[in-house]
Amino acid sequence: MEFSLTARQLELQERTRAFIAEVIIPLERDPRATSHGPTEEFRNELVAHARAAGLLTPHASVELGGLGLTHAEKAVVFEEAGYSTLGPTAMNIHAPDEGNIHLMEVVATPEQKERWLRPQVQGHIRSCFAMTEPSPGAGADPSMMQTTAIKDGDHYIINGTKWFITGAEGATYVIIMAKMEDGSATMFLSNMSRDGIKVTRQMDAMDSCFTGGHCVMSFDNVRIPATDVLGEIGRGFKYAQVRLAPARLTHCMRWLGQARRAHDIATEYARKREAFGRILGKHEGVGFMLADNDMDLQTSRLHIAHTAWILDQGHGANFESSRAKVVCSEAEWRVVDRCVQILGGQGVTGETMVMRIFTDMRAFRIYDGPSEVHRWSMARKIIEAGEKRV
Amino acid sequence: MEFSLTARQLELQERTRAFIAEVIIPLERDPRATSHGPTEEFRNELVAHARAAGLLTPHASVELGGLGLTHAEKAVVFEEAGYSTLGPTAMNIHAPDEGNIHLMEVVATPEQKERWLRPQVQGHIRSCFAMTEPSPGAGADPSMMQTTAIKDGDHYIINGTKWFITGAEGATYVIIMAKMEDGSATMFLSNMSRDGIKVTRQMDAMDSCFTGGHCVMSFDNVRIPATDVLGEIGRGFKYAQVRLAPARLTHCMRWLGQARRAHDIATEYARKREAFGRILGKHEGVGFMLADNDMDLQTSRLHIAHTAWILDQGHGANFESSRAKVVCSEAEWRVVDRCVQILGGQGVTGETMVMRIFTDMRAFRIYDGPSEVHRWSMARKIIEAGEKRV
Amino acid sequence: MEFSLTARQLELQERTRAFIAEVIIPLERDPRATSHGPTEEFRNELVAHARAAGLLTPHASVELGGLGLTHAEKAVVFEEAGYSTLGPTAMNIHAPDEGNIHLMEVVATPEQKERWLRPQVQGHIRSCFAMTEPSPGAGADPSMMQTTAIKDGDHYIINGTKWFITGAEGATYVIIMAKMEDGSATMFLSNMSRDGIKVTRQMDAMDSCFTGGHCVMSFDNVRIPATDVLGEIGRGFKYAQVRLAPARLTHCMRWLGQARRAHDIATEYARKREAFGRILGKHEGVGFMLADNDMDLQTSRLHIAHTAWILDQGHGANFESSRAKVVCSEAEWRVVDRCVQILGGQGVTGETMVMRIFTDMRAFRIYDGPSEVHRWSMARKIIEAGEKRV
Amino acid sequence: MEFSLTARQLELQERTRAFIAEVIIPLERDPRATSHGPTEEFRNELVAHARAAGLLTPHASVELGGLGLTHAEKAVVFEEAGYSTLGPTAMNIHAPDEGNIHLMEVVATPEQKERWLRPQVQGHIRSCFAMTEPSPGAGADPSMMQTTAIKDGDHYIINGTKWFITGAEGATYVIIMAKMEDGSATMFLSNMSRDGIKVTRQMDAMDSCFTGGHCVMSFDNVRIPATDVLGEIGRGFKYAQVRLAPARLTHCMRWLGQARRAHDIATEYARKREAFGRILGKHEGVGFMLADNDMDLQTSRLHIAHTAWILDQGHGANFESSRAKVVCSEAEWRVVDRCVQILGGQGVTGETMVMRIFTDMRAFRIYDGPSEVHRWSMARKIIEAGEKRV
Repeated sequence: MEFSLTARQLELQERTRAFIAEVIIPLERDPRATSHGPTEEFRNELVAHARAAGLLTPHASVELGGLGLTHAEKAVVFEEAGYSTLGPTAMNIHAPDEGNIHLMEVVATPEQKERWLRPQVQGHIRSCFAMTEPSPGAGADPSMMQTTAIKDGDHYIINGTKWFITGAEGATYVIIMAKMEDGSATMFLSNMSRDGIKVTRQMDAMDSCFTGGHCVMSFDNVRIPATDVLGEIGRGFKYAQVRLAPARLTHCMRWLGQARRAHDIATEYARKREAFGRILGKHEGVGFMLADNDMDLQTSRLHIAHTAWILDQGHGANFESSRAKVVCSEAEWRVVDRCVQILGGQGVTGETMVMRIFTDMRAFRIYDGPSEVHRWSMARKIIEAGEKRV
Repeated sequence: MEFSLTARQLELQERTRAFIAEVIIPLERDPRATSHGPTEEFRNELVAHARAAGLLTPHASVELGGLGLTHAEKAVVFEEAGYSTLGPTAMNIHAPDEGNIHLMEVVATPEQKERWLRPQVQGHIRSCFAMTEPSPGAGADPSMMQTTAIKDGDHYIINGTKWFITGAEGATYVIIMAKMEDGSATMFLSNMSRDGIKVTRQMDAMDSCFTGGHCVMSFDNVRIPATDVLGEIGRGFKYAQVRLAPARLTHCMRWLGQARRAHDIATEYARKREAFGRILGKHEGVGFMLADNDMDLQTSRLHIAHTAWILDQGHGANFESSRAKVVCSEAEWRVVDRCVQILGGQGVTGETMVMRIFTDMRAFRIYDGPSEVHRWSMARKIIEAGEKRV
Repeated sequence: MEFSLTARQLELQERTRAFIAEVIIPLERDPRATSHGPTEEFRNELVAHARAAGLLTPHASVELGGLGLTHAEKAVVFEEAGYSTLGPTAMNIHAPDEGNIHLMEVVATPEQKERWLRPQVQGHIRSCFAMTEPSPGAGADPSMMQTTAIKDGDHYIINGTKWFITGAEGATYVIIMAKMEDGSATMFLSNMSRDGIKVTRQMDAMDSCFTGGHCVMSFDNVRIPATDVLGEIGRGFKYAQVRLAPARLTHCMRWLGQARRAHDIATEYARKREAFGRILGKHEGVGFMLADNDMDLQTSRLHIAHTAWILDQGHGANFESSRAKVVCSEAEWRVVDRCVQILGGQGVTGETMVMRIFTDMRAFRIYDGPSEVHRWSMARKIIEAGEKRV
Repeated sequence: MEFSLTARQLELQERTRAFIAEVIIPLERDPRATSHGPTEEFRNELVAHARAAGLLTPHASVELGGLGLTHAEKAVVFEEAGYSTLGPTAMNIHAPDEGNIHLMEVVATPEQKERWLRPQVQGHIRSCFAMTEPSPGAGADPSMMQTTAIKDGDHYIINGTKWFITGAEGATYVIIMAKMEDGSATMFLSNMSRDGIKVTRQMDAMDSCFTGGHCVMSFDNVRIPATDVLGEIGRGFKYAQVRLAPARLTHCMRWLGQARRAHDIATEYARKREAFGRILGKHEGVGFMLADNDMDLQTSRLHIAHTAWILDQGHGANFESSRAKVVCSEAEWRVVDRCVQILGGQGVTGETMVMRIFTDMRAFRIYDGPSEVHRWSMARKIIEAGEKRV
């Protein structure tokens, strides 16, 4: 094993870090960072900054205009991007676009790529991913999907309701998961402007980092031509895995940056604020929290690097990405919760960015599979397959 | 020991429960419940409802128009009130008014009571408590107070800055803590309209349950007549304890109601929502969380009842109220965090009240002394005084 | 609610405390306290001390020679007894005799009581309870019982293997759980000397507080007359519940005493031992552990008192005793684990009693139903019955 | 970063694994594995097995007869050795010899090495390390040392008492830490047979893995020639760090093997034992514990590998080895505690090796600096030095 960063990782790390510190963090208090995410206008400005810095959509292939990052390089770059709540938006590596871009690169036809992916990589358009449904539909258990796609000549007719669709408001295109008559699932591509597609409402959400917020969508006899099927008919669940294994890990990376940011703010505060005769940081009750933060940050970083390395070897990493997702989402959450505690009253107000990070991050233990589903999935593999994880 | 409720407790419990369920909960989605708390107009409507139900300011003495509740009775009533995020506002038992009313009853002169306390008990005016200061001022360590009161004939001149002053915007009067020339502290009463008193800004806060929000205030050569000193000169820190020991416990009570509400919502969800072939509640991963919730709720309830009983015996309960505050704030928080997790996506959106309860409650581990300060204080008593806590 | 102790509770508490402190604790280092528990000889001496102090078998009815304690009185007395690792043995209130005595009082015939229960209450004989079996037999799930009882005229023929049978070596009689042909279970009484009953071996165990240790037993064509059935045929599982609900709670009581003992030892150490310029207890890292201990001890005490009160009202308390068992076994364990940590090297050696308490107590989270089974049982009741636990 | 094992690591891993599985594990039930550790005779047999397998003292330099392992290679080999409670003893890599060998290699003179180190590397003799003292002497805070060394011509006279001296009974030589008149500390080498050195008693201990147990030693006017000073006068505390930083990490490695062993035993049990209609492992309550075990094992492995890599770069790693020590000791402990819980009654008895692993491992959170001291040390570095740990 070898833990040094490559020259390219170091260069990317330094460049991203400087970009975030100098260009993006000064914009964090812009009022266009609303409770439903950055406005489109603000988002476009942020993207323009990243474009100018040569850091836009860095995970996309060079052919499409990205930097063709490996997973190990993403680990470094995305952590730095996440250091600002606006960083992932600026660099076009936020959810769901980041995962959609990855999925499209792997599965879409050349025509589909030209039409949707290339402008998306260039930062001109946004997308959303319509999978989750209200009860009794698809949630943590995707097999419960209720949205249907019925073949009708060379078209498919889609009906259903989706919710928690991140970024839907203002998105140019959508990837729709729907159930076929044989129980399998298929992914469809569509412009959002198509007849029958409607954003019913934006949901109030604890987080506020996603342009377009989280939306309820209805699909009412939406006619999609067969040429707009994404990949093959009936392989929707499989593609969801293609999307999710790395998407889970990129969440871990971005949130690691956020957690580190919170830790830095809390450390700075603990160095200066005094109480009971000494600076906070010299009280063991606070100092121990800082030490625990450091442990949790390093634990997260190591799991991310290890899982990225497996993915870069070309292996599936379902078990490892589940594991990394649970470990990181819980460790990074503990970090941010401790930072709130260290900051006291300031931790629960907008005086620092920590409150925003706290409310943004709570969902991380839930989306892309709640901790409980990943634990169950890991347990099944440990028990049934007798897999050894040495 | 005897764990049954008295007839009066049962009657109050039932009446409050019905009032909250029938009158207050239906109002929770009113848009006047803003991110800075209920508007004044809305607050007044809520108060009118409680007045009509005979449940306004129940902890105040009968003489002043309250119900003269014992601490043990408050335990029951405040828990029921807390079952709605609007309940404490409606019943005039929210912070800081609840604690201020208690303090005024104990310390204020008859004239001061007539002028400020009586209309406050009747729900006509609100108050705030100006103690906490920006660094390097008074925070968890009140001895660091920077705000000064200088004697000037039969007046005192007050200068300083305060923040996290809950309910300041729109309050009629303020209790100001200031440091005397000899290092002691004194409490002063003043109308908010007095020259030199200014609400500089409302802070953005994670919670949204307090009318008036949390404010920064400046005191600029504020002249206060000696007759408006609250209690005796130099006893400010002592009165702060008079206020805090029960105030801590009433927080525990109200938040217990909130936690129980979240638990009920999550339980209902776990009974109905299916995944992986059975209702959520039959998955041990969810069921265990519900069991843990029940344990934490009961633990909180027992500590509250025990500490309330000690207070009702007329004993100080500094140790026990510190202990109850830490136990309850952490146990109730765990409950609400688990409920978010059980609800999944709905837990982090406004689809249920749980998101609100989650963001409202985080501060509970911080205000009235963060957990760390109470642990330190308890440890000191265990070690230094050799106190036995059997 | 009312949290004061009755005059009788106070008298019993004081008397038991003095007995343990003055008579029993000085005997703790006696070499006859072996790794398989106190020897019979030592046990008999201890029992004689309790008899002399009027504290022998205090939970038994007055008619049989006990003190007829209520559950609330047991809470006080058993905690004090548990303060020494030898206390429960001395006072004849250790497992399994304590629970067996309770079961026999409720279910046995007058003849059975005279034959077995009276001498047991007088401390002259010991008993064991043969329920648990090696895989694939009865464990946490008693319905998997493999030991069979076949009717043969006016006798029953019992065959099977049991293990973890506490106190079997040296016991005079045994209560045997066996499965009937119809799938129900029955309890049988037998002298240990009966043909076909054999203690195969003593198991090595982490604890060392039970005279007779934990044994493997074989039942080989054991012929038991129908008159020695305990209670009614086919009601074995029900009687097991009769035994268990209070037996669980008495474990909580005794272990609370042990945990308090460990806490007192650790507190004393933290008061005197210095490191890094101050006594340990003034380091927040240690002081916080002492504060957490106090919280956990008080939480345990409150749950015990509450559940005892319900039992004293004559109600079943299956839910509450499950809850108290999980809360107490986990809270008391945390206390003892923290005490080990505070004591450092001395915590993991026999220099203090804390090591013994630590190794004795680990099983508490397992026996009488592991935490997981109780959480599952609580969850089922919360979900299925919609029970409200206000 | 690169997470594959080198060919040499793989070969060593495979060979050690086979050796432990085929030769050592079958000996674990040998009665000469006593509660005070393997007897000398048994230890010599075990060492002979490792010698025959070419796996004796593998961390020593090739010149002295070892395999000259890097830290990264030790990570792999020591984990495999730790898979059996007897493995480290067999391979001569247990504490304190492992650390003493390392220290001697770095600091001792050629003559000292020939006299003591070479036979030790060959497995013929054992050593001990006499640093810790009874209160008020050196413990977690080594600066409190009471044992004195007074210069007397070309000798030093040593007086003092030490305890928790692992392996003292039966050791051939001892490294003694003593305080000089100027407050600095020095290390001295001495045969145990020297006049004035006495093993007063063996302490009862929770663990039972160290030949020679843990002892109290007295030093009574012990005359040591200046040629037997280890390293330079006055540099004792510095050498203690030389010894400790890697010694901490090798503990993490060996205990990782033990934790993995426990996890494998528990997993096997959860695959076969049924309760409530399915195998234990399919109950989420058990399955989640297995998943958590996997996370904790992998977290430990990653921290070990990372810290070993830093040490192999020739850097000091005080911060990282503190961090790894806390993370691993706590994570591996959680694993073993969960395994006890999964195994139920068998977990707290000698039916499997898990009970032994549990009682052996508890001390790990204490020795080589308790978790609290490492957290404090980490906090100081985070706060004071403003160190960034990216």
